[in-house]
Amino acid sequence: MRTGADLAAIRERKPLVHQITNYVVMNETANATLALGALPVMAHAIEEVEEMASVAGALVLNIGTLSEHWIEAMLLAAKAANHAGVPVVLDPVGAGATRLRTDTARRILDEAEIAVVRGNQAEVATLAGREAEIRGVESISAEPGAELAIAAAERLGCVVAVTGPVDHVSDGERTIAVANGHELLSTVTGTGCMSTAITGCYLAVAGDRPLEAAAEALVAFGVAGEDAAVGAKGPGSFHVALYDALYNLDPETLDSRANVDG
Amino acid sequence: MRTGADLAAIRERKPLVHQITNYVVMNETANATLALGALPVMAHAIEEVEEMASVAGALVLNIGTLSEHWIEAMLLAAKAANHAGVPVVLDPVGAGATRLRTDTARRILDEAEIAVVRGNQAEVATLAGREAEIRGVESISAEPGAELAIAAAERLGCVVAVTGPVDHVSDGERTIAVANGHELLSTVTGTGCMSTAITGCYLAVAGDRPLEAAAEALVAFGVAGEDAAVGAKGPGSFHVALYDALYNLDPETLDSRANVDG
Amino acid sequence: MRTGADLAAIRERKPLVHQITNYVVMNETANATLALGALPVMAHAIEEVEEMASVAGALVLNIGTLSEHWIEAMLLAAKAANHAGVPVVLDPVGAGATRLRTDTARRILDEAEIAVVRGNQAEVATLAGREAEIRGVESISAEPGAELAIAAAERLGCVVAVTGPVDHVSDGERTIAVANGHELLSTVTGTGCMSTAITGCYLAVAGDRPLEAAAEALVAFGVAGEDAAVGAKGPGSFHVALYDALYNLDPETLDSRANVDG
Repeated sequence: MRTGADLAAIRERKPLVHQITNYVVMNETANATLALGALPVMAHAIEEVEEMASVAGALVLNIGTLSEHWIEAMLLAAKAANHAGVPVVLDPVGAGATRLRTDTARRILDEAEIAVVRGNQAEVATLAGREAEIRGVESISAEPGAELAIAAAERLGCVVAVTGPVDHVSDGERTIAVANGHELLSTVTGTGCMSTAITGCYLAVAGDRPLEAAAEALVAFGVAGEDAAVGAKGPGSFHVALYDALYNLDPETLDSRANVDG
Repeated sequence: MRTGADLAAIRERKPLVHQITNYVVMNETANATLALGALPVMAHAIEEVEEMASVAGALVLNIGTLSEHWIEAMLLAAKAANHAGVPVVLDPVGAGATRLRTDTARRILDEAEIAVVRGNQAEVATLAGREAEIRGVESISAEPGAELAIAAAERLGCVVAVTGPVDHVSDGERTIAVANGHELLSTVTGTGCMSTAITGCYLAVAGDRPLEAAAEALVAFGVAGEDAAVGAKGPGSFHVALYDALYNLDPETLDSRANVDG
Repeated sequence: MRTGADLAAIRERKPLVHQITNYVVMNETANATLALGALPVMAHAIEEVEEMASVAGALVLNIGTLSEHWIEAMLLAAKAANHAGVPVVLDPVGAGATRLRTDTARRILDEAEIAVVRGNQAEVATLAGREAEIRGVESISAEPGAELAIAAAERLGCVVAVTGPVDHVSDGERTIAVANGHELLSTVTGTGCMSTAITGCYLAVAGDRPLEAAAEALVAFGVAGEDAAVGAKGPGSFHVALYDALYNLDPETLDSRANVDG
């Protein structure tokens, strides 16, 4: 893994990361993308998503607040990205919570080529056809993440990142466990969505190594979370410090801080 | 009133609080909900709102940025919540400012059973059929809050919380005045919406006592505002500290800090 | 220029600034407006935009996340504002990046009377019919801002503010350069949109002097950026401090801090 070198590449190349994401976290994922060093762009109109996705370095799809036209836009953008060789990461927010979300995530996976799926245990378990318990968009499941990541990667035919106290990233053959992060991440809405956006940033410079790109993104985001927790008094000050920490991540020392296995 | 004990129950049970709210404050109300200790979920698609509202602990409706499909979704969600016995709180943002907002707030009150209405003086006065002056979504009215809350509760047949420098909560028979809070709350957009979301959190554990739940929510939010103001340099640092303060509210001492009358 | 006196007028009159803006920055531009001292209101429904725009002190249009109904709403609002004598500022976010954005910005300029266009170099160059390079919504162009501002003002028949390391504001005859600001502004998403919202605040009290209003807004925002940078550790803490700084701008000393030419 080359978490630091790929971060340096992100800052050097400033790839455009096109995000079709939910209303709740748009500002937050844009700011996380910018703080890391890439260029975010949000565009969801059916009339422009193909044009925007085709020139992007990566496309991020997030189904956190769906409606009809947005689903259509995501499918159009994903196909345009596929055609242009732009890697796509999918965040199946709330898959398992309502039929609309489960069906939409499956439909995107069926109709487009997805490089990486990044979700919590319940979301990934739902997509892998397993039992899952979800409350709203929060996972209550307890299936070991490594086995789930492997099974989902085999079933979905792409890299799968299952995040939780320890994250597991698998392409079905190799599996990487990432233990970076901090429990305060779960007290701020959209931190999962941010990790997906940052996966998009890494895919933009390491799209030929999607397993590593996904794991590196979780290392970088986790280390930033660790840094942000220092001195935080709660979710508010932690959230603010998270952007500072992403901005101040040091490519030189980042690999030495990776807490990975596999 | 059991502000502390109900807060402890929220943190213990982590109820799902389904919010169909405006674009401006979605992130903020989700984070306030999470910081308090409940689980927020935002979902507005007509295809999924009934499913989501039925399994929630409470439903929050906020008309701050309306459009046609959102109104339809709010009505569907409210009816599903009613059917499932899930309490509903309505924030009539900008009622009185445009016909669309006034009419939509009235329509929701007519077609669904609302447990609590939480609004500013002008919004509540509009719904109570009284004279009101509103500039955008900001109340310019000066009618005494207690009388207004009582009159509105009688007219609307539900608990009404009128917030301002002093908040007044009434079910038409009993009226509680809450003097907690800080003037910096009016310098941050969406703090009214946050107080409505927190009303939803309290309703999720004390739905059988809606008058107290609404007053307790305003005490909790007001105390958090007081804590956040300590050391704040302006709206930005106050806003950040507000999430920290909600997260750090102490159930043991919360009742002793309530500044209530009635 | 009367940057301080006009700020005092904003705080005295608290004008309503109606904003039809993008999903990414709604909370941020509302908070910047409120921190400066004006009253923001967000409303985009076709059924209410004319009513709201007619009673506003200024109308802000921002095309950062377009879709069909929003375009229609912007045109309706702009015409109602024109009819009521309410000044309109347009932020052509991403003009040049996709046809939809370029066409929509041009259509608004054709069908309504715009007092001020506030954009980056690539966006303004696109509207002026010049060569431009844009990556997503980020300008890569390097055309000297002053000449561009003059040419665009002549072509579009309104005041044009081109922002960058140095901002240039022109009505085609007089051109003002504003060198206030800080490089951290480019690390936070939506700071351009905030400067447009603040242009709306200034237009609400100085609509008869649109060139000065636009330049004054950039001075005020730039000075706030300078203040916010003191002690900032990165984009997160800078962003928070920016609202504090807007709130704490001192009308008495503001003019002495203006770094302007022209």
